[in-house]
Amino acid sequence: MSVSEIERLIQVLAKLPGLGPRSARRAALHLIKRRDSLMLPLAEALERAARSVQTCRICGNLDDVNPCSICTDVRRDSSILCVVEEVADLWALERSGAFKGRYHVLGGTLSAIDGVGPESLSIAALVERAGDPAVEEVILALGATVDGQTTAHYLTDRLNGLAVKLTRLAHGVPVGGELDYLDDGTLATALSARRPL
Amino acid sequence: MSVSEIERLIQVLAKLPGLGPRSARRAALHLIKRRDSLMLPLAEALERAARSVQTCRICGNLDDVNPCSICTDVRRDSSILCVVEEVADLWALERSGAFKGRYHVLGGTLSAIDGVGPESLSIAALVERAGDPAVEEVILALGATVDGQTTAHYLTDRLNGLAVKLTRLAHGVPVGGELDYLDDGTLATALSARRPL
Repeated sequence: MSVSEIERLIQVLAKLPGLGPRSARRAALHLIKRRDSLMLPLAEALERAARSVQTCRICGNLDDVNPCSICTDVRRDSSILCVVEEVADLWALERSGAFKGRYHVLGGTLSAIDGVGPESLSIAALVERAGDPAVEEVILALGATVDGQTTAHYLTDRLNGLAVKLTRLAHGVPVGGELDYLDDGTLATALSARRPL
Repeated sequence: MSVSEIERLIQVLAKLPGLGPRSARRAALHLIKRRDSLMLPLAEALERAARSVQTCRICGNLDDVNPCSICTDVRRDSSILCVVEEVADLWALERSGAFKGRYHVLGGTLSAIDGVGPESLSIAALVERAGDPAVEEVILALGATVDGQTTAHYLTDRLNGLAVKLTRLAHGVPVGGELDYLDDGTLATALSARRPL
């Protein structure tokens, strides 16, 4: 028996992150029951996004326009550059609404194990952007992981000669977090970086 | 700022069962990174399935052909009819490989709370199929839930006058299940339905 179109759809859906075989089957049935309200709109959204989404040639963000709408937004502060690992991190910072400067997406972190060296990331472009006299501060908003911190150290070395202030995100107790559930490293960091009230 | 194509894609993806806003964002980034290997194939699989998948007019299964490939498979035993709530249950039984008869998909269970009466389900068609002299046994493979068992009782009443054997799935300890984690109802049922070794 040949593979049916449903089976084919399930196989493709199961390749999405967060969907295993069981939830892919559930999603396929859900879609088939909602052919006009969900299945065809999803097919169209995928095709439209595949056609129009591009990587911004300045910062590495994904958008319909190139350069992206953040890079061309004149209301944003072009004197601060926030360096992130991935586009998902850029989106997270945008959702927080706390940053009004520009971004630079590295495209990952340095990783000896995975063979990711400086030339695999958007580091040369970052050094060039950070050398622009208009840029006064570079925030290294990298993950508090081993690879993230290795990358931050490497970038600090590379950017040190430039006339920019280098900063990193604060480490500490997450807002809404209970001390009881925090790992020792975060607690120790939060304690040593304590602030006067 | 208008909604970008990425944002639109995320909004549609978030409507899939099992994907919330966060995992929809992850899935969208995953898809955009794999435009040719995943994003366009998914769009095509959705469109092909939307075009070709139909509900079998005999049993209610979903397939590219109508009647479905199970109903037209001459190797399957047409003397046994297995009644299930949903297509997902039919798929689960097919995966087990333990049933070689035909199916009948009800399309749900009776539910006074949700206003699902006998006329909303494929019950008249079931009674007609069960009345076929070739059918010797009807297995009620409904869920061991209140609604599933209510529906099973109702179907038993409706099918009782016919010359078919009515059976239901066995209840008991799931294979691989530990007694310690089982609910009291299942344990009590498994104990009272114990079998000689």
